[in-house]
Amino acid sequence: MRAFNTSFTLESTARTEIADITALVTSAIRPFAVSTGIALVNTLHTTCALFINEFQSALMEDLRGLIERLIPDSAGYCHDDPRISDCERGNARAHLRAVLLGRTLAVGVNDGDLTLGQFQSVIFAELDGPRKRAISIQVIGE
Amino acid sequence: MRAFNTSFTLESTARTEIADITALVTSAIRPFAVSTGIALVNTLHTTCALFINEFQSALMEDLRGLIERLIPDSAGYCHDDPRISDCERGNARAHLRAVLLGRTLAVGVNDGDLTLGQFQSVIFAELDGPRKRAISIQVIGE
Amino acid sequence: MRAFNTSFTLESTARTEIADITALVTSAIRPFAVSTGIALVNTLHTTCALFINEFQSALMEDLRGLIERLIPDSAGYCHDDPRISDCERGNARAHLRAVLLGRTLAVGVNDGDLTLGQFQSVIFAELDGPRKRAISIQVIGE
Repeated sequence: MRAFNTSFTLESTARTEIADITALVTSAIRPFAVSTGIALVNTLHTTCALFINEFQSALMEDLRGLIERLIPDSAGYCHDDPRISDCERGNARAHLRAVLLGRTLAVGVNDGDLTLGQFQSVIFAELDGPRKRAISIQVIGE
Repeated sequence: MRAFNTSFTLESTARTEIADITALVTSAIRPFAVSTGIALVNTLHTTCALFINEFQSALMEDLRGLIERLIPDSAGYCHDDPRISDCERGNARAHLRAVLLGRTLAVGVNDGDLTLGQFQSVIFAELDGPRKRAISIQVIGE
Repeated sequence: MRAFNTSFTLESTARTEIADITALVTSAIRPFAVSTGIALVNTLHTTCALFINEFQSALMEDLRGLIERLIPDSAGYCHDDPRISDCERGNARAHLRAVLLGRTLAVGVNDGDLTLGQFQSVIFAELDGPRKRAISIQVIGE
């Protein structure tokens, strides 16, 4: 049994952006050649998210519509009010969307690769870009 | 320290169905006799979910009401529009509900058994059934 | 490689209360001196939640507003209706909010400490207090 850490960065190019990062995560963990174990994929940020689902562009549009409907851009957020908050960037929506979507993926690893279903992708959601983002990965296994 | 993989399948019988699978997960991990460790329970699908809460039928009705209110069956989803999507099954709602509810459970394992609180159950939510579903489990521990 | 279990309790003082428990979690895992690994932080309850984000008071007010808007205190919940439920405490809202926010944190551990980004805190949300709550932690690493 061994434990490994790795990380990579990516740069988002829009305020909201949803990207399939399955290949990046796969490339990051493959060198450890773990035959049986788990991988944790985390963002170290508070305004982006990670989740697993089908990466289909029409569906990602729907997801974007959903989070904008549930958590509107502006809704009188305290965090965005300079009179009561020291936040320089009015991005409450991005924090709240990140909490709702989650920031950690825990995935099985088999024969060096992520255990994903046929339609599953590892998906990164930038919620307050464009920014440079770090993805941190822990792999534990044998 | 060892790492183990196992899995089981279940068949849902309705479009939306919420089931207590604690006993199935417990039976799947007990043979590994892990005294201290963790278990990851994942679905390999994109239209069902896993979470932990109290499995009480009235509460599960409320949960069903909640996800149908937050993510209605039809809301002009792009994914369901044959003009812009190659999806054969108009199931955007199921994908979006799965993202909201989550698909991984990470639970402690002690003395071979899941570390659950008195009122906690491992709950599976079918969001686009009826279908045959695979649950994949990784156990790491000593 | 080793696996460790630990836990601590905390007492909430209000019905809804959001607290930064990063220091408590850090103190709980540091004695294990894990140089590389992961920590799972779980609640063993069904009406409180754990997540990671920026702990800023104005933002936490916004989060509170969000969960109260998405899941109102009273919305004719079945769980709260004594005619169809044996629940003695009308707390469907708390269960549903807990499902939405999540109850497990999986975090990397490096040099004995949690791998958190600059603005990340481990946040506990009491959704049906005041109560005494147990937080269970599993650490696996080398």
